Amino acid sequence: MTYFSTTTLEPQVESRANPPQLIALDWGTSSFRAYLLGSEGQVLETRSGGRGVLAVTTDVLNQKDRTVAFVRELETMCGDWLQDNPGLPMIACGMVGSNQGWTEVDYRTIPSNLLESSASLTSVSTPYGPLWIIPGLLKEGQPGSIVDLPDVMRGEETQLLGALPQADAGDDPYIVVLPGTHTKWVRLSGSVVTDFGTSMTGELYDLLVRHSILGRLAETPEQPNEAAFLRGLDVAFGTQEPRASPGGEGILATLFSARTLVMTGNLDALEVHDYISGLLIGAEIVNFSRRWMNDGNEGVQGPTPVSICANTALTRRYGVALNHAGITPSFAHRNAAARGLWLAALATGLTTKENI
Amino acid sequence: MTYFSTTTLEPQVESRANPPQLIALDWGTSSFRAYLLGSEGQVLETRSGGRGVLAVTTDVLNQKDRTVAFVRELETMCGDWLQDNPGLPMIACGMVGSNQGWTEVDYRTIPSNLLESSASLTSVSTPYGPLWIIPGLLKEGQPGSIVDLPDVMRGEETQLLGALPQADAGDDPYIVVLPGTHTKWVRLSGSVVTDFGTSMTGELYDLLVRHSILGRLAETPEQPNEAAFLRGLDVAFGTQEPRASPGGEGILATLFSARTLVMTGNLDALEVHDYISGLLIGAEIVNFSRRWMNDGNEGVQGPTPVSICANTALTRRYGVALNHAGITPSFAHRNAAARGLWLAALATGLTTKENI
Repeated sequence: MTYFSTTTLEPQVESRANPPQLIALDWGTSSFRAYLLGSEGQVLETRSGGRGVLAVTTDVLNQKDRTVAFVRELETMCGDWLQDNPGLPMIACGMVGSNQGWTEVDYRTIPSNLLESSASLTSVSTPYGPLWIIPGLLKEGQPGSIVDLPDVMRGEETQLLGALPQADAGDDPYIVVLPGTHTKWVRLSGSVVTDFGTSMTGELYDLLVRHSILGRLAETPEQPNEAAFLRGLDVAFGTQEPRASPGGEGILATLFSARTLVMTGNLDALEVHDYISGLLIGAEIVNFSRRWMNDGNEGVQGPTPVSICANTALTRRYGVALNHAGITPSFAHRNAAARGLWLAALATGLTTKENI
Repeated sequence: MTYFSTTTLEPQVESRANPPQLIALDWGTSSFRAYLLGSEGQVLETRSGGRGVLAVTTDVLNQKDRTVAFVRELETMCGDWLQDNPGLPMIACGMVGSNQGWTEVDYRTIPSNLLESSASLTSVSTPYGPLWIIPGLLKEGQPGSIVDLPDVMRGEETQLLGALPQADAGDDPYIVVLPGTHTKWVRLSGSVVTDFGTSMTGELYDLLVRHSILGRLAETPEQPNEAAFLRGLDVAFGTQEPRASPGGEGILATLFSARTLVMTGNLDALEVHDYISGLLIGAEIVNFSRRWMNDGNEGVQGPTPVSICANTALTRRYGVALNHAGITPSFAHRNAAARGLWLAALATGLTTKENI
């Protein structure tokens, strides 16, 4: 049973005969991607490689500078779209709506229905009309609790909206993994986010490879080495037998082997990066599968279904890792962010369309 | 039952009437400490703050430069000792004996009796006579194994020698923790090292505080905040009930809380550093206590005894953490390195003394 439509991996590009309906922005901490969407939410054009929130605000001293800086970056990415389509509605998600972004948008607290929360927009004014920003999600946790800790997301809630089941999938719980610098594991029931957590996997990988002693014996490979990645997973899982609930020690006890295996001639310098990636993603899967995978659904409905929602090389990496842990993931909508932005715009009447 | 002598925290400084017998060097990656030892191994004088192996070799291009650089640093630290006591024997331990150091000294493989392995010395020649270097220890592991991984140490083997039981403590297994940038957990039986592992706790703490997003909401406290440290331990253990086998999720699932707790007003910016320290040291204790603490000794002889061997602020921190995990550690010889260097020199006849 698949919870998500698995569309082609090629973005749907249609002729400009289809008039643009919406400018949709996925504006994160370190990346900025813009979509020009057509009358049924089709991606007419995609622009990527824009400057993320951190880069845009590098030299910003006050709120006026801040506005100028974000407007300039908006024009750099979408200037021609704005000129050719005056008054075209604009919507955005991500850290652009944080205190480090263009303006701070309040979080919606979970449990939260994505169909509702993503529709409560806040706007900033631009020379081209208002830019509407989607709120992030907050898990408040229990103050003082050591197990129920707070967590936050900005942008992922919109990808989740875009990745929601086409048909009503009922209320059975399912899990969506959104790989990245700060990977999110999200537990949903229908369109309601009931719980989520953050794993700093991508940032830790970057720190270890670039700044730690482990990087000294490593060489950057031409292309990913899957055998080394699988080996890292095996060490993280503490087993070579795929199973639904892998165990294994934490990364504090395993990381140093990325150095000692090379010193003893058991790992090639070109394999170190993928091996470390396996240790980290493996440990992440151990943590969250322990937390969520076998919570009463085993047996009756089988383990909780897991989907991967990403648009990067990490999609395949997480797919391999979950399969290696005995978990068979499905894959979410290729353009989940663009689709989520479109659905939020529709839900608020920012744009219209007959049949969704 | 205490496995270690717990001497005064003040170094034993005696009058120069006691003639120097040995120059003992603890020369690591980032630190260099020199001891002038008397006729019974007493510390007559201590010099610290010398340049570690990395700093010494920064501009080194070839082996000749390398020798010159190390001799110069030796003279900077011990020049007057060498002038006043011509022909005084010299011994060293640590990364000075690595391929990044003065000369590469082979490892001794475990299981290894410290009384023997620390006595097989390699020398480099200096204008002041030979400098004898103690070999490190190698855990070979099983090639291809995902659980029996290789590991290495250089310098800690000498601290362990200096921290060995005064009287014969029999063959009951015991554990020595040596906190640091790369904390070592060592399992011994009598004077034989049977197993050990490395936890990159100190290096990870440094990376996270200095380079990760967690550092952005943190302020450096005037002094350690024990409450925040204990809170981090509780989260790492997944419990506030001290017990011998703490559980809890790995740091990938807990680290981000060092940001979200501040964002939600549940943690002060001044508490972040100690909270992260608690998360990391707590996870380290979970890993190694799971591996070693309850391996058949529970009940009959009680849990495996644990001792902390360090000379830094980390000694107290690890003591608090182990106690919080329900493990009561003892504390090793204050000058374990100096004592180990002395014992190795005695064992090889490099220096002599009637009654050890």
